Amino acid sequence: MSSAPLLSGVLAPVVTPFQRDLSPDGKRLVGHCRWLLERNCGLAVFGTNSEANSLSVGERIELLDLLLDAGLDPNRMMPGTGCCAFPDTVRLTSHAVAGGVGGVLMLPPFYYKGVSDEGLYRSFAQVVDRVGDDRLRIYLYHFPQMSAVPISIDLVGRLRDAFPGIVVGMKDSSGDRVHLEAVLRAFPGFGMFAGNETLLLANLRAGGAGCISATANINPEGIDRLFRSWQSDDAEAIQSSLNDVRLAVQQFPLVPALKKIVSHYASDPEWNRLRPPLVELGEAEGRKLISDLEKLGFEMPGLGGFAQP
Amino acid sequence: MSSAPLLSGVLAPVVTPFQRDLSPDGKRLVGHCRWLLERNCGLAVFGTNSEANSLSVGERIELLDLLLDAGLDPNRMMPGTGCCAFPDTVRLTSHAVAGGVGGVLMLPPFYYKGVSDEGLYRSFAQVVDRVGDDRLRIYLYHFPQMSAVPISIDLVGRLRDAFPGIVVGMKDSSGDRVHLEAVLRAFPGFGMFAGNETLLLANLRAGGAGCISATANINPEGIDRLFRSWQSDDAEAIQSSLNDVRLAVQQFPLVPALKKIVSHYASDPEWNRLRPPLVELGEAEGRKLISDLEKLGFEMPGLGGFAQP
Repeated sequence: MSSAPLLSGVLAPVVTPFQRDLSPDGKRLVGHCRWLLERNCGLAVFGTNSEANSLSVGERIELLDLLLDAGLDPNRMMPGTGCCAFPDTVRLTSHAVAGGVGGVLMLPPFYYKGVSDEGLYRSFAQVVDRVGDDRLRIYLYHFPQMSAVPISIDLVGRLRDAFPGIVVGMKDSSGDRVHLEAVLRAFPGFGMFAGNETLLLANLRAGGAGCISATANINPEGIDRLFRSWQSDDAEAIQSSLNDVRLAVQQFPLVPALKKIVSHYASDPEWNRLRPPLVELGEAEGRKLISDLEKLGFEMPGLGGFAQP
Repeated sequence: MSSAPLLSGVLAPVVTPFQRDLSPDGKRLVGHCRWLLERNCGLAVFGTNSEANSLSVGERIELLDLLLDAGLDPNRMMPGTGCCAFPDTVRLTSHAVAGGVGGVLMLPPFYYKGVSDEGLYRSFAQVVDRVGDDRLRIYLYHFPQMSAVPISIDLVGRLRDAFPGIVVGMKDSSGDRVHLEAVLRAFPGFGMFAGNETLLLANLRAGGAGCISATANINPEGIDRLFRSWQSDDAEAIQSSLNDVRLAVQQFPLVPALKKIVSHYASDPEWNRLRPPLVELGEAEGRKLISDLEKLGFEMPGLGGFAQP
């Protein structure tokens, strides 16, 4: 097992920019990752909000190589590698581990629904066995609303027992505080990341590791401030102000909203492009989104210089 | 547009055999496909019941090449090609069309949930445009219980209008007779396949094209008999006997049940193997399944010689 410290703090499922022909825009991606790292935000590239499941395996491998070649710190990366077919998951995971990433975020195979814990156990076990690398650190990705394949607490326990030091944490995107706290009660010290910052304070108080949040793409400093001062008297007030930004964003579909915001604050219309089945916000929606954020005094300082190539 | 006749009748989402290391077993797959074709059953390879979403894109391409190299008739094939990422869908679809298949069965991108018709329209349109081949014939795959991404009747109409002669039909696996009949009322002559044989008679009476059913893997002659004689006095009785077999099978998870049946009647334990997250039936379940089928006088004549390499 690796002796590097486990991941903690705030990570962004980094939004993926696309060129006019919908191919990934590596230069803008590197720029945005630099901007995030400068704000102490880790890189959960290839997450749900990265449109990772709209990218081919080959595209994900090329993009990760690009980030590594650009000199970005792999220790701050937790790329998503979980696919429907285990050969794909094995390929992405092996490549990420070889690149020295801090961990991988692994969806269960998500096409077949109503599958058994035994089937999901075998899925993860196949991947661990075939990757066959002690440096592997898996964060299980529990997102029942999107994957429609929940990861039960029983399954977490079985995987931890079978693969100690490898199955080290979870991203809980259920939004269910009771569930998040139940996992931490069952497995104290488990590397638990809340799926968004509205549960960051609760998660840290329960012993969790941090959060991986869509909104960290645009509000990394605010969220990191809470992570650094969660034991201070200001914590509740910071949490409350984070929630205001989050609410303004999530009144619209998340990925289109994030791209609109980056596009607006970077003065870069190229950022406002998505792969189907996701669709950019309409004009009126975009105006309301930016207007609501401005009312909160929201800013993204330094973005223009980073987010553009 | 191709002038070949549109697909009709009975097709099986062909179960995919795996070797001990879980790699696809091409020889057994060719054998089973031959057995099905000899019984007038078309090959909807790489469907849900083929565990297609547990196969990588490369594995699907290799297997289709193997079937074509074995001399199986591509006109009787409707491979599944719909993936989450359009580059994958384009690659699989282009390869299948180049191989001369009768059509492709296309899932919508199925990771992102709650997406708009506009987003799904763009997904399919990207694929049609990038494949850029007039021989392409798409059967839309509507399976809300599994994909969790339904294809609305409005979307069907929009795609038919935009791509006449290319978007030619649908597999409706909703199991909802009302929906199936509503599609055919809206689009008379649309190549509508019921997702299982329990709705075959209703579908044919409403003007549909046939069925694509898991159980066609094991009961192709019975289902084809109904297709050939649906206007006869015997139709209701045949439908009823088909339903009995279907009920016996679907008391258990479908893919494990199908593999158990093929394995049993081919006397070939190698068939009883699945990729995770699917899991083989337990011993007692398997015994009950075979016993229930035997009570119905069920047989799979000629299987041994075909299903083994």
